[in-house]
Amino acid sequence: MKLYVVGLGPGNFNQITPRAIAAMEQSDVIAGYTVYIDLIKEHFPNKQLLSTPMKQEVDRCKMAIEETLKGSTVAMVCSGDAGVYGMAGLIYELAQNYPPIEIEVVAGITAACSGAAVLGAPLIHDFAVISLSDLLTPYELIEKRLDLAAQGDFVLCLYNPSSKKRSDYLQKACDIVLKSRGGDTICGIVQNIGRDGECAQVLPLSQLRNTQVDMFTTVYIGNSNTQNIGGKMVTPRGYRHTSNG
Amino acid sequence: MKLYVVGLGPGNFNQITPRAIAAMEQSDVIAGYTVYIDLIKEHFPNKQLLSTPMKQEVDRCKMAIEETLKGSTVAMVCSGDAGVYGMAGLIYELAQNYPPIEIEVVAGITAACSGAAVLGAPLIHDFAVISLSDLLTPYELIEKRLDLAAQGDFVLCLYNPSSKKRSDYLQKACDIVLKSRGGDTICGIVQNIGRDGECAQVLPLSQLRNTQVDMFTTVYIGNSNTQNIGGKMVTPRGYRHTSNG
Ligand SMILES: C[S@@+](CC[C@H](N)C(=O)[O-])C[C@H]1O[C@@H](n2cnc3c(N)ncnc32)[C@H](O)[C@@H]1O
Ligand SMILES: C[S@@+](CC[C@H](N)C(=O)[O-])C[C@H]1O[C@@H](n2cnc3c(N)ncnc32)[C@H](O)[C@@H]1O
Repeated sequence: MKLYVVGLGPGNFNQITPRAIAAMEQSDVIAGYTVYIDLIKEHFPNKQLLSTPMKQEVDRCKMAIEETLKGSTVAMVCSGDAGVYGMAGLIYELAQNYPPIEIEVVAGITAACSGAAVLGAPLIHDFAVISLSDLLTPYELIEKRLDLAAQGDFVLCLYNPSSKKRSDYLQKACDIVLKSRGGDTICGIVQNIGRDGECAQVLPLSQLRNTQVDMFTTVYIGNSNTQNIGGKMVTPRGYRHTSNG
Repeated sequence: MKLYVVGLGPGNFNQITPRAIAAMEQSDVIAGYTVYIDLIKEHFPNKQLLSTPMKQEVDRCKMAIEETLKGSTVAMVCSGDAGVYGMAGLIYELAQNYPPIEIEVVAGITAACSGAAVLGAPLIHDFAVISLSDLLTPYELIEKRLDLAAQGDFVLCLYNPSSKKRSDYLQKACDIVLKSRGGDTICGIVQNIGRDGECAQVLPLSQLRNTQVDMFTTVYIGNSNTQNIGGKMVTPRGYRHTSNG
C-alpha cells in the first residue's frame, strides 16, 4: 500500500519535477486542496481526483490514508515542498497506526527558493524560515524566534505573513527585527510565485513595516550585508572578501 | 545577452525541473563544476560544455560572464538550488558591471528539502539553515547562530558539515546545541542525496555528536517536538494539539 506525499512547487507546471509527475502517474487517486488539484488535473485526465475545499488539513490527510487502506495507490499533493509547512509530517503522524502503508515523500521547490529566484539571490547565506501563523504555535515563540534570528544576522524568510485575523503581524515582526537591524536593511516580497499575478518588490525594512501583504506572499528580510543590485535582492556568500573578487 | 543560473536539484535527473531543462536547451553553453556537468552532459549532446574542475567559484562565474559577453546564451549550473550557498549571488555581484547581461535564476530543489524527504519530514516547522564552512564567515558568527537557533527551538539544517580541515566542526556544533537542547533530541543525516550511495540515519543528538560525516552530507537537528516515527524523523506542524488530531 503506497501513499505518496508530493510537492508541486510554486504553481507553474514547468516547476514540477519528473519524479513528482511519475508519482502521480503511478497513483490511482490524486488528493489535495482544490487549488492544487486544479493546477494539475488537465494533465491527469484518467485519475480519480479527491479535491477538498476545506482547510482542515487533518481531515484531508485522514481521507488520503483511508483511500490508501482501501487498496488504492494515492498521491497527496501540496504546494511547494510537502515537507515545509506541508502535509508530509501529518501523514507520518496519522499513518503510524496503519503499518502496511508505505509513505514516500517527493520533494518540491519550496516558496523560499522559488521566491528567492524571482527576487534575485536573497538566501545565499544562512537563513531562518519562520511562519507568522499562530494557529498552532504560541505567538510568544514566534516573537522569540524573530528576535533571535534577527540577533544572529540570519536572512529571514517569512511564510504565512498575513491573514484576515492577523493583518498587523508583519508590522509587528518588522518591529522586532528593527531592534537589531537598521531600517535600511534590504527586504523583498514576492506574491503569487509561479502563478498568474506574480509580482515582486525590493524595499527597505522601514517600508516593509508599512506594507500590507496577503497570504499568497513570501517575505524576505536581508542580513546586514544584503544589497540591492539593480533592483535585485542579493546576499553575498560570506563576510570576507574573496581573494580575487 | 542571457545568462541562466540553474539549480539541478540533488543529483538525479528526475529531480530537475522542466524549466531548468528548458533553460539548458535554450543555451549555447552549459558551464559548471565538473561533477554537475557530468550529471547532465549525456542529455545535451549538442551543447558546448564548459566544465571546470577547480573549486574557485569566482573564476567559474567570471568565465560564464565572459562567455555571455561573447554573445552566447549561457546556463551556469549548480547543485541543489542556485540560490542556497550557490552561484546566483556571485553572478549578480560580478555581472553588475555588464548591464547588457540579463540574468535569470532557475530554482532547484535544495539539499535541505531533498534530504528532508529521505529522512521523513524534519522541516515541517520553523527551521534555520546554517553552513559550518568558515571559509567566508567568521567562525564566531557560526557559533553564535548555532546558539541562537538552538535557543529558539528552530529545527537546524546544517550544510557543509565537514571537511578535512574542519573534521571536528559538527561535534563542536552539537556541543553548542546541547547547551539548550537534550541529548535525546532526534537528529538525522543524509549522505549523497539522489546520488549513488544515498543513505540516511535517524539518531539522537548525543550520538550525532560522535558521528563523522563528509561534505556530501546534510545534517538535521530536530526541535523539542521532533519525533522518531518508525525510523523516520518527523517534526509536528506546531505546538498545540489540533482539535481533531
Ligand atoms: C502553509 S504554507 C505552505 C508552504 C509550501 N508547502 C511550500 O513549501 O512552499 C503557505 C505559505 O507559503 C508561502 N507560499 C506558498 N506558495 C506560494 C506562492 N506560490 N507564492 C507566494 N507565496 C507562497 C506563503 O507565505 C503562504 O502563506
Ligand atoms: C556549497 S553547498 C551547495 C548547496 C546547494 N546549492 C543546494 O542548494 O543544495 C554544499 C553542501 O550542500 C549539501 N548538499 C548538496 N548536495 C547534496 C547531496 N546531494 N547530498 C547531501 N548533501 C548535499 C552538503 O551539506 C554540502 O556540503
